[in-house]
Amino acid sequence: MNVQQALAARISANKFDTAHELTPEEVEALVAAAMEAPSAFNIQHARFLVVRDPAARAALQQVAYGQQKVRDAAATFVVLGDTRGAERLPLIAERSREAGLLDAAGAAGFAAKGQDAYAGKPAFAREEAIRSASMAAMALMLAATERGLASGPMIGFDPEALRREFHIDERYLPVMMIAVGRAAPGNWPRKPRLQPGEALVDDARPGLTHAFS
Amino acid sequence: MNVQQALAARISANKFDTAHELTPEEVEALVAAAMEAPSAFNIQHARFLVVRDPAARAALQQVAYGQQKVRDAAATFVVLGDTRGAERLPLIAERSREAGLLDAAGAAGFAAKGQDAYAGKPAFAREEAIRSASMAAMALMLAATERGLASGPMIGFDPEALRREFHIDERYLPVMMIAVGRAAPGNWPRKPRLQPGEALVDDARPGLTHAFS
Repeated sequence: MNVQQALAARISANKFDTAHELTPEEVEALVAAAMEAPSAFNIQHARFLVVRDPAARAALQQVAYGQQKVRDAAATFVVLGDTRGAERLPLIAERSREAGLLDAAGAAGFAAKGQDAYAGKPAFAREEAIRSASMAAMALMLAATERGLASGPMIGFDPEALRREFHIDERYLPVMMIAVGRAAPGNWPRKPRLQPGEALVDDARPGLTHAFS
Repeated sequence: MNVQQALAARISANKFDTAHELTPEEVEALVAAAMEAPSAFNIQHARFLVVRDPAARAALQQVAYGQQKVRDAAATFVVLGDTRGAERLPLIAERSREAGLLDAAGAAGFAAKGQDAYAGKPAFAREEAIRSASMAAMALMLAATERGLASGPMIGFDPEALRREFHIDERYLPVMMIAVGRAAPGNWPRKPRLQPGEALVDDARPGLTHAFS
């Protein structure tokens, strides 16, 4: 399945086969695909809490205002973003040094430059965590589609209840949840999209407001 | 090229062939691919200002702290997120009605429910715009990869200078820029990624802090 086909085939599923399970290998493969997404300074802010156990699913369903897909799907991936990801830049830089991409001085300089970019900017770091985690989420959904799995992204949940119930440290921001499993009958078809011309201004400098109205 | 191959092949490019140009059809196809990404209530928050004209590229390079790739790449896509996207829900619902997915009452109910979800929550709406635009950006980069094009995402720019220079209305939040074109020699190889086990907690309820340290 090529990229264009996966983009066109993906639907936001609500109905899942309750008998279907994901293997730990499938969970790891989906997370590995998600981690291929880019991130500023390669910080890799995205983290994944994968909820598969029936009791944990029931708890997560409560947090998600009762959404049935959390209970029905083989797994729900809670996608988190590390709001303090820049603190881990020395480790990230060290991995690039080990891979031969940077020498020791280059790695130190890279880590320092990245940490500088976020110093004293918690709002920027928070939004960066959302960006990175969202790009990773998109990669995960396309990888799932390619594997014949359905996915249902959700932002309808109580983030504070999620933190409490699953003991998520405050540094990790819940960005979205994605139910993943085998589709059951009854899903909505793909919803229509705006035409490119409705979402695109090609080189027009003044008047974006009007162009996108 | 399948999804997994595109994910593995994509690099964050800095060096672009300055002689290469994108056609308007290629620009539209990339935006259409980006618009396939999901969004809450199908609001489709993502918007794209595509900068290809040499003078506009020079202006954009200034806004992007002098980054050379803005000047060199065939186009830079400024990815914006509509922070007031929910206001457009009647139009979005009408498109679903025209497509036969909803009847008139269903369309009205859908629009009202979506507008309720964002009423009085500007911070949530802002973060939603970032999520949607970031997922669209990921889709755009993978579609570019499949077409043999390189892409270089950027968050290093002055959002206020961008607004002023390109007359972007305050409702549209600049989420990132993506330089797109044909790669030139000299790009960095792909940077190493964390192992799935470093970014994943599979059903562990307590102790995320330690699990992800």
